[in-house]
Amino acid sequence: MCIQLISAMVFDRLKIDRRTLLEYVGAAVFTPVLANAEEASSMWGMIAKMTIVPGKRDEMIDVLKQSAADMPGCLSYVVAKDAADANTIWVTEVWDSMASHDASLALPAVKNAIPRGKALIANFERIAVTTPVWGVGLAAAHAQ
Amino acid sequence: MCIQLISAMVFDRLKIDRRTLLEYVGAAVFTPVLANAEEASSMWGMIAKMTIVPGKRDEMIDVLKQSAADMPGCLSYVVAKDAADANTIWVTEVWDSMASHDASLALPAVKNAIPRGKALIANFERIAVTTPVWGVGLAAAHAQ
Repeated sequence: MCIQLISAMVFDRLKIDRRTLLEYVGAAVFTPVLANAEEASSMWGMIAKMTIVPGKRDEMIDVLKQSAADMPGCLSYVVAKDAADANTIWVTEVWDSMASHDASLALPAVKNAIPRGKALIANFERIAVTTPVWGVGLAAAHAQ
Repeated sequence: MCIQLISAMVFDRLKIDRRTLLEYVGAAVFTPVLANAEEASSMWGMIAKMTIVPGKRDEMIDVLKQSAADMPGCLSYVVAKDAADANTIWVTEVWDSMASHDASLALPAVKNAIPRGKALIANFERIAVTTPVWGVGLAAAHAQ
């Protein structure tokens, strides 16, 4: 699933109202791109750190796998365990555009993952929003 | 190039002696894996944040592209600009094993990048060492 929805799960649990959440997501996601018009058609990326309820990391990984397996425009989506912290998951994403990322919010598999994920995430930290510029393992058209 | 060598560039500039550097790299890279034998044959990942000398980010990206284009066992290597900070680069790596990552240290393209990179990196932060478990965009054998 895309990271905004994971973020939404956490904020919902923390009882932040929907309007505040949307403002938060809008500010964090859209501002950097709008501020830099030349990169509007570039790749879009995200690095996120999730702290999972103890004992639930593998279950959360299953949720992520099921929701993220078929998202149009997603060039890379890596789910990784932190090597030192048994309750931490890292998710790194690369999309062909921010528009593809935003469109993923409407995918049934993404929406369906929310109820499962809500109970598993203790904390969510958006480490960085990025503009990927090159990569091994990305689609050829974007890796040159 | 692999992240240890980037790290080495920075530590060299900071005048830390070679023995201290090797102990640092050894401790950071090997301890988590040795402490968890069941994952010895699993994928291996890294998330790193680099602060680049102002005005030199694109040059550093070129260095990374040239050094990392052909590294055996490298499943994903994404170079990304931070969307909010003009001097920051994020590098996220996924390897089929830690052994493949370690072997990349000896590649000529990696070794040759060191002198160029040394002058461009102001700071290096290893955000996480990871055990990737699933991913879109990884080699098929490792993505299931």
